[in-house]
Amino acid sequence: MGKNLVQKILEAHLVQGELVAGKEIAIRIDQTLTQDATGTMAYLQFEAMGVPQVKTELSVSYVDHNTLQSGFENADDHRFLQTVASKHGIHFSRPGNGICHQVHLERFAKPGKTLLGSDSHTPTAGGMGSIAMGAGGLDIAVAMAGGAFYLNSPKVVKVELQGKLQPWVAAKDIILEVLRRMTVKGGVGKIIEYTGEGVASLTVPERATITNMGAELGATTSIFPSDENTRIYLEAQGRGGDYTALAADADATYDEEIIIDLNTLAPNIAQPHSPDNVVPVPELNGQKIPVNQVAVGSCTNSSYTDLMRLAAVLKGKTVHPNVSLVVSPGSKQVFEMIARNGALADILASGARILESACGPCIGMGQAPSSGAVSVRSFNRNFEGRSGTADAKVYLASVETCAAAAVTGFITDPRELGDLPTIAMPDKYLIDDRLVLSPSEEPDTVEVVRGPNIKPLPVNTELADALNAPVSLKVGDNITTDHIMPAGAKVLPLRSNIPAISEHVYVRVDPQFPSRAKELGKSIIIGGHNYGQGSSREHAALAPMYLGVKAVIVKSYARIHRANLINFGLLPLTFVNEADYESIEQSDEIAIDNLRGQIEAGNELTVKNVTKGTEFKVTHDLTGRQIDIILAGGLLNYTKSQAV
Amino acid sequence: MGKNLVQKILEAHLVQGELVAGKEIAIRIDQTLTQDATGTMAYLQFEAMGVPQVKTELSVSYVDHNTLQSGFENADDHRFLQTVASKHGIHFSRPGNGICHQVHLERFAKPGKTLLGSDSHTPTAGGMGSIAMGAGGLDIAVAMAGGAFYLNSPKVVKVELQGKLQPWVAAKDIILEVLRRMTVKGGVGKIIEYTGEGVASLTVPERATITNMGAELGATTSIFPSDENTRIYLEAQGRGGDYTALAADADATYDEEIIIDLNTLAPNIAQPHSPDNVVPVPELNGQKIPVNQVAVGSCTNSSYTDLMRLAAVLKGKTVHPNVSLVVSPGSKQVFEMIARNGALADILASGARILESACGPCIGMGQAPSSGAVSVRSFNRNFEGRSGTADAKVYLASVETCAAAAVTGFITDPRELGDLPTIAMPDKYLIDDRLVLSPSEEPDTVEVVRGPNIKPLPVNTELADALNAPVSLKVGDNITTDHIMPAGAKVLPLRSNIPAISEHVYVRVDPQFPSRAKELGKSIIIGGHNYGQGSSREHAALAPMYLGVKAVIVKSYARIHRANLINFGLLPLTFVNEADYESIEQSDEIAIDNLRGQIEAGNELTVKNVTKGTEFKVTHDLTGRQIDIILAGGLLNYTKSQAV
Repeated sequence: MGKNLVQKILEAHLVQGELVAGKEIAIRIDQTLTQDATGTMAYLQFEAMGVPQVKTELSVSYVDHNTLQSGFENADDHRFLQTVASKHGIHFSRPGNGICHQVHLERFAKPGKTLLGSDSHTPTAGGMGSIAMGAGGLDIAVAMAGGAFYLNSPKVVKVELQGKLQPWVAAKDIILEVLRRMTVKGGVGKIIEYTGEGVASLTVPERATITNMGAELGATTSIFPSDENTRIYLEAQGRGGDYTALAADADATYDEEIIIDLNTLAPNIAQPHSPDNVVPVPELNGQKIPVNQVAVGSCTNSSYTDLMRLAAVLKGKTVHPNVSLVVSPGSKQVFEMIARNGALADILASGARILESACGPCIGMGQAPSSGAVSVRSFNRNFEGRSGTADAKVYLASVETCAAAAVTGFITDPRELGDLPTIAMPDKYLIDDRLVLSPSEEPDTVEVVRGPNIKPLPVNTELADALNAPVSLKVGDNITTDHIMPAGAKVLPLRSNIPAISEHVYVRVDPQFPSRAKELGKSIIIGGHNYGQGSSREHAALAPMYLGVKAVIVKSYARIHRANLINFGLLPLTFVNEADYESIEQSDEIAIDNLRGQIEAGNELTVKNVTKGTEFKVTHDLTGRQIDIILAGGLLNYTKSQAV
Repeated sequence: MGKNLVQKILEAHLVQGELVAGKEIAIRIDQTLTQDATGTMAYLQFEAMGVPQVKTELSVSYVDHNTLQSGFENADDHRFLQTVASKHGIHFSRPGNGICHQVHLERFAKPGKTLLGSDSHTPTAGGMGSIAMGAGGLDIAVAMAGGAFYLNSPKVVKVELQGKLQPWVAAKDIILEVLRRMTVKGGVGKIIEYTGEGVASLTVPERATITNMGAELGATTSIFPSDENTRIYLEAQGRGGDYTALAADADATYDEEIIIDLNTLAPNIAQPHSPDNVVPVPELNGQKIPVNQVAVGSCTNSSYTDLMRLAAVLKGKTVHPNVSLVVSPGSKQVFEMIARNGALADILASGARILESACGPCIGMGQAPSSGAVSVRSFNRNFEGRSGTADAKVYLASVETCAAAAVTGFITDPRELGDLPTIAMPDKYLIDDRLVLSPSEEPDTVEVVRGPNIKPLPVNTELADALNAPVSLKVGDNITTDHIMPAGAKVLPLRSNIPAISEHVYVRVDPQFPSRAKELGKSIIIGGHNYGQGSSREHAALAPMYLGVKAVIVKSYARIHRANLINFGLLPLTFVNEADYESIEQSDEIAIDNLRGQIEAGNELTVKNVTKGTEFKVTHDLTGRQIDIILAGGLLNYTKSQAV
């Protein structure tokens, strides 16, 4: 029987288990990447493992999140990252070199390789035919140390692209269509594999836009085949030697199938406050929705061709007086190329504000819109408050739709702009890797520089025999890691300082949460479906752990967050009967007797609501290895105990 | 008897008083400018005056300070500024259009005009032959309403430039030399007028570098003649019609004279933590001082030729691995020109980080260096902590010296870099004023948009008959307005919200100050020489007023801050006998009996130190008009009472 592309690559990297959907497997990781907001913790964890040099084929440490530098913390973190990378065999991409996913796609990603990144948008490299997954920093540390990556073998969803995109309709509109159909929890436990005649008409950067934002489906990752377009892109990046052709077998089978007709696809837009709240732009066109801000950039849509398209639309036009247009080029390569060919000048001439090549406003790192503003962004997330302005209304759309909003001042179907400018991928990209520092050839001489904001890593204790703790918080469905551990300009600088950052846990949901949790000493959180969607940040597990959260009981989890909970020894429980969610109130005293025994005995546990005098069932859904991790109080304890 | 240039322009604008140094005069103001951090308050004050349209020849509202937008406050302020400008006849320079002083020089400043700006670096336009002065927002509001500007008629200092700058020595090195000789308090009560053969070799942007940083002398302003170079610059800006030749008479007299021999001038550098702590770069060259950050930009050194020189030095070189080089172009004109001609691409290629065209790191708005870092900046201020990093060591130097540090990683004499690249001023600048919005032609239809962070202006009450209050703080010499009212990314967004921003008054000197002052209810501050130097921010008077500070007793004042104290009804007293400063301690109870009577009776007042049982003398040095303002409780009360 034929194999799909996902099966082929996973099989080639399998070190444990078998490819049966839902069963745990372990795979070898070829490449890792980190960004600065998750990377400081990942490297502290790597140091704690005592492995002198990374054992991957390639590990790269990027700086793209904390680039505003409102205080000393960011620059201190950058120095730490630069020196720790140099010491341990890791390449360091200097601030200014661009967004990790864009740079990695340009310079390092390879077809058929596995890439693990401490950022949820690591699937960007799926556009190149990599199996590229987001994970917690601790998982990256383990991978760098040569350990395998454990995951549940995914279902594979075939998305067949038929036909060809029409003028002014973009790759972004494809992934928005997939989100409209599958929703933000539709991809959990799945890898999305793109096939069909439409694939051949999409360039690698366009494919990367799609696989990048596949993260919003909750999918494990997304992937395109490696074909002639992949070869052309790699040649243009001076990396023809990295090319391998890769595709599913003709008779490959899939767990699910979706067909998208590109011929009839219209520009799409995700409305506030979820990436799956998608409608075709024409549905909003008549409403004349006034726009206050337009933002172009982010790891989803900041490639060379993205910015060239923006420049072509803006050329000779003026940004509407009521709109602030902010543009962040995705990489130094993109920035320098558009600075050399006049496109940047055209963008500037129209009235755009140019930001550093970094994540910027996509992670709430500056450019917060005005109160109640409408902001149309080429980004991948529009969670409430993520922009830095609590009541802003953020829409997600293609660069073309963003450009149309910038010049008209309203949400506008870009097809109204007239003739489509033709933008081709360059024959040759401008190649200059000077901002990527190679690791030291004399690692023993490198001194790792630690600023005062870099605090030691808190470590959990082993799981107790019984759990008696009150519910410190009850939340609903689709809680994001932005809810649990906000990002943004005020909180991100604290990523190396768990005691300080824990003061911000859940504050947008309940400002009293951190103080209450600390006062309670230990506690339990109750949640709904798709708990922990969004960013891969392990701080959403680590900081609650620091505040004494011992277990989370929800209806269902997002993959990466659940893995992070396990990594830090927080028990991730799921209601057997969802209706039991209703019976629990905040402050209820919850008890699980014989906790260790129950976990080891089977998947189902009995939980008492002492306050209400009721009982209900939950499952832990842990593999044998995960049970050992939970009992040990987290992956770091487990890894150390294994080493003994 | 011949007249100097200052006398000529002041006489042409005199509406009250006579030009006798130290005597109060009032002059007509032709142009005003504001920036966003001081502008919101200035326009709230203008609105309070009830004048529908500005009465100046030109008023421009710029946005260059609060551009990071870490929260909703900045963007809300921008909307307020845009709409209030449109309503009242003010031009609005949109975010992204650049730094107020650079843009004003390029597009609006005229020889022989008076310009009043709510920013201490307004003297930049002195490079064009304007009398351009910084003042508090309330003074700008009065000027916009058609009122005269009151100041003490200044002494005029002649700085004669002999010879010609040698290769790699820059205009910046001239003003650093003046600062070395005159110190940061040497210019108080004076205007610096540049003359001599050396003037003809300096372009208008070079002259503007010098007049800009003349603010650091404490001078009222600085000015260059308007000559052939001025005509060439205005022609290149498409403004040949704005040219008038202006110079001192051949037999003009001056109050003081300084001669600088440009032929022998070396590159200079101001060491931490004062702009007058200047040494020639060769003195540091041998010490191999490692540099962590280099920053090029700011209203002092971000002109087209500045950035072209930077690009020429960097071309083909790489920024040192331990240096973060950040570059902020001064205006959209500069940015677009270097984006069109390849210079920006050369800067990017070297590894520089490009920031938005705005004040940025110069005001601590991002790019805080790492802990204990050495930062070499082409800026104008290196006050301790202003960079956003308390223990950073900031040096000030020319673009050339900055570029040398960026590529070598050490403080380096730029003359070691070899041949000097030739950079000429362009025959024609790129002219595109689309980002300057003209005011509405139907002002009645404009609705002023006010976000929730824009709070009503607190107003003082009239002066009490007696003052009994404790000393809430005693400080030393050279206190800056950054000490009193910190700027930076965390505090600047609160500039429209006095209750909120007052929580930050003096916190870097004494974190308990705001709570103590509020608890005391009313209090007095004791200070040393040059009290209130630096930025023109009136919040350094307004916020202490809100905290109950009634009087300040010091050894001497910086001009703008003293004027701001008077404007907000805080009594600015000066020790008759400086030794009395020593006898006062924090918490001492101070009493001034018959306060109103004593002020009206003469310049000298008797003050009792109730705690110590002593008495000492102070002067108020107020003019008749200023006495009326102080008695009324500030300029706004006074202006209203005059209107009745």
